Amino acid sequence: MNERKRIVVIGGSAAGPKAAARARRFDENACITMIQKVPDLSMASCGYPYFVGGVIEDRTQLICTPTGVVRDPLFFMNAKNISAKTRTEAVRIDRRKRTVVCRDLSTGDEFEEPYDKLIIATGSIPRMPPVPGSDLDGITTLQSMQDADYLRRIRDEGRIKKAVVVGGGLIGMETCEALHLAGIEITVIEMMPQILMFLDPELAKLLENNVKAWAANVITDNAVAEFLGENGRVTGVKLQNGTELPCELAVVAIGVKPNSQLARDAGLEIGRLGGVLVNDRMATSDPDIYAAGDCVEVRNIITGENVLAPYGDLANLQGRVAGENAVSGNVASFPGTVQTGVCKVFNYQAGSTGLSERTASKMGYDIETVVTAGPDRPGFMGGLPLISKMIVEKSGGRLLGFQCVGPGDVSKQVAIAAMALQGGLTIDTMVNLDLPYAPPFSLAIDNFIATAHVLQNKLRGLFQGISAEEVKRKIDNSEKPFIIDMRGPEEYEAMRLGIGERLIPLGALRKRTDELPEDKDTEIITYCKISLRGYEGVRFIQSLGYTNVKVMEGGIAAWPYPREK
Amino acid sequence: MNERKRIVVIGGSAAGPKAAARARRFDENACITMIQKVPDLSMASCGYPYFVGGVIEDRTQLICTPTGVVRDPLFFMNAKNISAKTRTEAVRIDRRKRTVVCRDLSTGDEFEEPYDKLIIATGSIPRMPPVPGSDLDGITTLQSMQDADYLRRIRDEGRIKKAVVVGGGLIGMETCEALHLAGIEITVIEMMPQILMFLDPELAKLLENNVKAWAANVITDNAVAEFLGENGRVTGVKLQNGTELPCELAVVAIGVKPNSQLARDAGLEIGRLGGVLVNDRMATSDPDIYAAGDCVEVRNIITGENVLAPYGDLANLQGRVAGENAVSGNVASFPGTVQTGVCKVFNYQAGSTGLSERTASKMGYDIETVVTAGPDRPGFMGGLPLISKMIVEKSGGRLLGFQCVGPGDVSKQVAIAAMALQGGLTIDTMVNLDLPYAPPFSLAIDNFIATAHVLQNKLRGLFQGISAEEVKRKIDNSEKPFIIDMRGPEEYEAMRLGIGERLIPLGALRKRTDELPEDKDTEIITYCKISLRGYEGVRFIQSLGYTNVKVMEGGIAAWPYPREK
Repeated sequence: MNERKRIVVIGGSAAGPKAAARARRFDENACITMIQKVPDLSMASCGYPYFVGGVIEDRTQLICTPTGVVRDPLFFMNAKNISAKTRTEAVRIDRRKRTVVCRDLSTGDEFEEPYDKLIIATGSIPRMPPVPGSDLDGITTLQSMQDADYLRRIRDEGRIKKAVVVGGGLIGMETCEALHLAGIEITVIEMMPQILMFLDPELAKLLENNVKAWAANVITDNAVAEFLGENGRVTGVKLQNGTELPCELAVVAIGVKPNSQLARDAGLEIGRLGGVLVNDRMATSDPDIYAAGDCVEVRNIITGENVLAPYGDLANLQGRVAGENAVSGNVASFPGTVQTGVCKVFNYQAGSTGLSERTASKMGYDIETVVTAGPDRPGFMGGLPLISKMIVEKSGGRLLGFQCVGPGDVSKQVAIAAMALQGGLTIDTMVNLDLPYAPPFSLAIDNFIATAHVLQNKLRGLFQGISAEEVKRKIDNSEKPFIIDMRGPEEYEAMRLGIGERLIPLGALRKRTDELPEDKDTEIITYCKISLRGYEGVRFIQSLGYTNVKVMEGGIAAWPYPREK
Repeated sequence: MNERKRIVVIGGSAAGPKAAARARRFDENACITMIQKVPDLSMASCGYPYFVGGVIEDRTQLICTPTGVVRDPLFFMNAKNISAKTRTEAVRIDRRKRTVVCRDLSTGDEFEEPYDKLIIATGSIPRMPPVPGSDLDGITTLQSMQDADYLRRIRDEGRIKKAVVVGGGLIGMETCEALHLAGIEITVIEMMPQILMFLDPELAKLLENNVKAWAANVITDNAVAEFLGENGRVTGVKLQNGTELPCELAVVAIGVKPNSQLARDAGLEIGRLGGVLVNDRMATSDPDIYAAGDCVEVRNIITGENVLAPYGDLANLQGRVAGENAVSGNVASFPGTVQTGVCKVFNYQAGSTGLSERTASKMGYDIETVVTAGPDRPGFMGGLPLISKMIVEKSGGRLLGFQCVGPGDVSKQVAIAAMALQGGLTIDTMVNLDLPYAPPFSLAIDNFIATAHVLQNKLRGLFQGISAEEVKRKIDNSEKPFIIDMRGPEEYEAMRLGIGERLIPLGALRKRTDELPEDKDTEIITYCKISLRGYEGVRFIQSLGYTNVKVMEGGIAAWPYPREK
């Protein structure tokens, strides 16, 4: 080994530069080299949609420091004494010789980069649908700076009128908004029955409704069968159900897979999900090689199982750990993820952390869930709605997951929930949280705490809940539950579901018990705007001896189907 | 005991109505009576400043449900079957007879209200300075709906030009903003050397600077010696240093004390701080009497010691527990507080949770702290600055406290920190948090995590920090540390401290080592805009063998003193 430790980092986007910079801070004498295939370094790739949409005016804002210095090789050399080689491909890792074979993409020349410790941060590659026509011009992903440049040019030129976004995930929805801002008519196509699979269906549906209200078309449960073209340019997509949608642009956003080929070729252990396997020190199966970022599999802290979590924030944290360990020995550790994510879609936010009901059930957890609706702040301070779903273990009440959508401050709710997960909190702690309260920022009982209250009530059997979905199914099946809208007459006049409900305002309920069904075993379903009054009503109706009374969770605010009014 | 349990609640503002409503949900048959001295019920008292300032247009918004129903006795009767007696004073508790002696303030008639379980929620009373002139017209607090009505009338009439706010705490600062919005020229007078004592001085100073920039005068370290008046109306205040400030209005906001006289007279145990003593079931020393809200002492979860925590959110949570336990036996519990608070002061927010450095040191904790600065979101998404301070135990790294000020999203940062406290997290967990990241909402490494990174670095001895305060003291004492500003030349031209610093941009540092002092033991202090580059520079300078290198924490962003430029 040289006196000066040689650290090679493959990848210069997120985890790579972070690892290199962290290594430098622990070892001023190390020789640190960073290999980057593309021309840019340290790109704020999560900002691409905002650049495409024109929210970010100038491309350099994506690749410069907060004070405006472009993070190019000169910057890395001067500020961090790191040799960054761009337009350079890592072709092969020779573990025996401990070198990385590199190719200068400008000249085609190959050279070897010797290492004492190697850090692999090769990121992810976008999935493409295996259908005819995928190579037509006008079909792109939004994964690279080049993609972003391409789409931004399209925006600036203003010639394209119709586009299709293939994939209704996080990037797909952000792209949908970006292209809408660019004045392009959008259709989103999602193979699954819902967009944003990190959400459970009822919350995803609310978001989908809002996207449609903003004039983007959304087609779910259908996939692209073929890209249609003329003269080598895309002119439309054909869906699996035969529908043809004309378009001049198609952006594919059906997810990414770990870019682990280099590691695989070098004989490093690869996980079941295709990512590089690392331990909590971010070390691969070769103790001289670390890996970080989208190319690795990450431990889910809740389940203990590996997942793919290609998020920019985790890439940075993992890079930090890999960088330190590469120079200082295996000192630092990265515990894993709770899979927290959030995105902005027009005036809505959507976020989740932990397990969805779908995932938790599939994994065999015995769970209880609740959906609630409420504002993020008092109405008199301009509060905006949040629809939240909380998932806990039935026994013990440990939080397993939380998701939230709406125009309100979703990201704060999800942050609170992510912290609750990482603190291992149970329902009994969550009902008594001490959070920062002032009218400009929250309700006296914060939405998160209120949701815990409702779920605790449900866990303790104070009420039975029923989802909007289930109520809709009953109506569609011509079942005839006794449905009570517990709002006031003015509210009922202004807006109502029209699903056969009877209006009995909560304030009149105790005087109008004669209107309740005679048979105490009749299924009764109550709701109001957010189902708080619905719940209070249920408690009273139950006290009369009714045995089958349910609250429609989230009330009208969480009803994702058409209303009478 | 009657068949129908008789629950009496004294107090109808926050904890009281919550307790009564919760009791009703567990026992439809109970007789629930609520005694309220003032005419209004369930007032959103934290909203008073926003009503006074005109942010809230209509008074009824403070006392109505989200759907616009005024929470008057009729509402409580119809919606919750609770008998609310307003303008009724609880005069005496007769524990032997289990009755509350009440007086109807309209008629003067006394009557007895028998109880099986009693809940005391008498709130707090504002402190008044024991100085001459306190009874002059034009001197008020902002504690009651009547106070709010009075100040709102003053705003609407628009005749008063100058006012003094006595007390620079949370309510004082909110009142300052409200009266400023009402077009009144304000001076805030604070007896302590700083405003907002829940902050440590360096953060409080930043807020004070901002308040002054918004044209409100702030006088610290000085108190009111006398209110001056003419014809029974206030005309000014005289301070302890002899200064006389003319004013036509004085709002006193020097804090509140528990309104525990009724409980004390009934022989219930009262704590050292003057609040009613309760256990974690919210039961007083009499098992048939519960207490909740501002009138009780609360256990601080971190220290285990009792504190006063007169916050609306905690009152609601405590009321919920007391209400359930009063009808269901001692089922529910309230664990205590971490003393989380936040307020809005003009375009800044200020918040804290847990212990301040001042409190933690006073209590004998062996702590490490750090101050950091950074934006809440990327600059290209309109990020706004946050100045944060984190306090942990040196051994083990358990979080003890966190505070934050700035125009950025402080309330989210404080919420994250409050959750970390309630999860008992240590620095090693906080450096790897999985929080919701997307450019519209946060940095890839959230401000809270970044602060944990810096503090972890400090705990591990990677750098020594020095506060802006300490640097200022050294300059004022004509000590001559070698000070390096590590920013770029353009930044230096645009803004600089002018405290004898030398400009060596980080990117040039490795080539300009000959400019560093010869004596390796010289005290060197570095900084930049937020001291990230300052930190990177320190790591390099230390590698040259310098033994006494320090980073000025928070950089220029946290410098609360005048700058050269």
